[in-house]
Amino acid sequence: MTLTIQFAANSAQWEEYEPLLRDALDARGLDYTLSTDVPPDQVDYIVYSPDSKVKDFTPFTRLKAVLNLWAGVEKVVGNQTLTVPLCRMVDDAGLTQGMVEWVTGHALRHHLGMDAHIQNPDHKWTPKPPPLARERKVAMLGLGELGQACAAQLVALGFDVHGWSRTEKSVNGVTCHHGNDGLIDALTDAQIIVLLLPDTPATTNVINSNTLDLTAKGAFLINPGRGPLIDDDALIAALDSGQIAHATLDVFRIEPLPQDHPFWAHPQVTITPHIASATRPKTAAQVVAMNIHRNETGEGLLHVVDRTAGY
Amino acid sequence: MTLTIQFAANSAQWEEYEPLLRDALDARGLDYTLSTDVPPDQVDYIVYSPDSKVKDFTPFTRLKAVLNLWAGVEKVVGNQTLTVPLCRMVDDAGLTQGMVEWVTGHALRHHLGMDAHIQNPDHKWTPKPPPLARERKVAMLGLGELGQACAAQLVALGFDVHGWSRTEKSVNGVTCHHGNDGLIDALTDAQIIVLLLPDTPATTNVINSNTLDLTAKGAFLINPGRGPLIDDDALIAALDSGQIAHATLDVFRIEPLPQDHPFWAHPQVTITPHIASATRPKTAAQVVAMNIHRNETGEGLLHVVDRTAGY
Repeated sequence: MTLTIQFAANSAQWEEYEPLLRDALDARGLDYTLSTDVPPDQVDYIVYSPDSKVKDFTPFTRLKAVLNLWAGVEKVVGNQTLTVPLCRMVDDAGLTQGMVEWVTGHALRHHLGMDAHIQNPDHKWTPKPPPLARERKVAMLGLGELGQACAAQLVALGFDVHGWSRTEKSVNGVTCHHGNDGLIDALTDAQIIVLLLPDTPATTNVINSNTLDLTAKGAFLINPGRGPLIDDDALIAALDSGQIAHATLDVFRIEPLPQDHPFWAHPQVTITPHIASATRPKTAAQVVAMNIHRNETGEGLLHVVDRTAGY
Repeated sequence: MTLTIQFAANSAQWEEYEPLLRDALDARGLDYTLSTDVPPDQVDYIVYSPDSKVKDFTPFTRLKAVLNLWAGVEKVVGNQTLTVPLCRMVDDAGLTQGMVEWVTGHALRHHLGMDAHIQNPDHKWTPKPPPLARERKVAMLGLGELGQACAAQLVALGFDVHGWSRTEKSVNGVTCHHGNDGLIDALTDAQIIVLLLPDTPATTNVINSNTLDLTAKGAFLINPGRGPLIDDDALIAALDSGQIAHATLDVFRIEPLPQDHPFWAHPQVTITPHIASATRPKTAAQVVAMNIHRNETGEGLLHVVDRTAGY
């Protein structure tokens, strides 16, 4: 029997998602129609995002499940008209691998001093090679799944990687520190600092005027973790004094970063718009197809939201 | 007995090399004096570069060896006053590892679209994540020691790496092509092209208007190999048409790249000053100390130039 799948996520994403969903559904051998416009009483599955126009699920009388394209479901989880399973997006490939690529890329960018070549209006030819990665101490703050994956790649490139976590951990090739004293050891003389800590009361402002003073002079700060890990004013002061040579930031206390925030205009700050770790349409489409296939073959849906717990 | 070592390389490098040489000589347990200014008849070893002021070795009556800081010796090899062993610099760590870091860094830079964030005068916040590395076909032209080392790192990051060499090769994780037909297969739909071929009559202009037409539209070209691999005019045309989105070039037919070369002013070209693979002072100092230690302990000098062959 042909399945009817409605794409009811943000309509701006249809053009990108349609071919990816068709490829993924075809690869699973599913018999389906896929459209943005279907009579509600014929729809089997909805591919959804919480900014969809669909807010009332009552007319979808034969609906089997709603497959969310976002990891976050807080804007839909309380919808009383939704009585079938709601699945959140778990795109491990996009989240972890994307983070590894972003962190490794920006660590190498600062290590190699690329910015001076990318922006070189005076056409200067100064053949001074950078040191080798093994001469750079990297402080990886946070050794969860993302921190460990990024640390492993930086170790493979030869960086002298020091990790820090609240509790004691052991990671291959990484000099591990923990606890309050360990934070000082990890940051002391570090030339590249990467923040991949969770946002908790204990980690708020972990990067402040005291901890910024510990790093090597002219260090690089890279934050793909959480905005509140950094005391923004202390970072600006460290950039202005030269203690920190450059900060590359992907996350902020308020997002999008307000246009009047001093980070935007600071020449030693690079802003990326919360893209370090993100659901990728291609892998997200594969997760959607996998889940429909599982439900149709009796294996059961994955990543079903517990509506009582809210996630 | 205390060894007398004269630093007679380019005097501008003394400040950087002195502490590195002392550290490396100390680490070998050698008893020495190191200076730029010694009576010639007291010198045991000369740390040299071909742009040195020392051109006449006749007064150095007790000289044991000349230790060159450059890999190239063509400007000194014919000096008839030099009758003791001349050693060229072989800094494998700097040459191979440096190349891996440079190639990986610039591949990730283009993959992640960093330039749009580094230069973002309008403060645009456009959270569109890049594809994952595994969705990018990389063509690695050249599978010698450098090409293989770079390919391995790109494979570790998930890129879909295709390699090409003149003769058939097999490299772990790399889809290998060879010969004329193989070049077409390697380049077709490639999104990132890295050139690590030697400069031979067969490789001159391997990147030309025909081969540039094979890549994916908007591909990135990275050349840390040799300048003559690229037909410069064909590359400019491909950049102007959008067939190539950006070229990052470290080597040129004439170096330093002349100020009137169109690459300098082209907004889609990034120039680095032949630094991708370079002798690093720190590792070069270690090679010098290793070689003095070998000679003093009877193990014999490494990397001695065959003055008849010229290298």
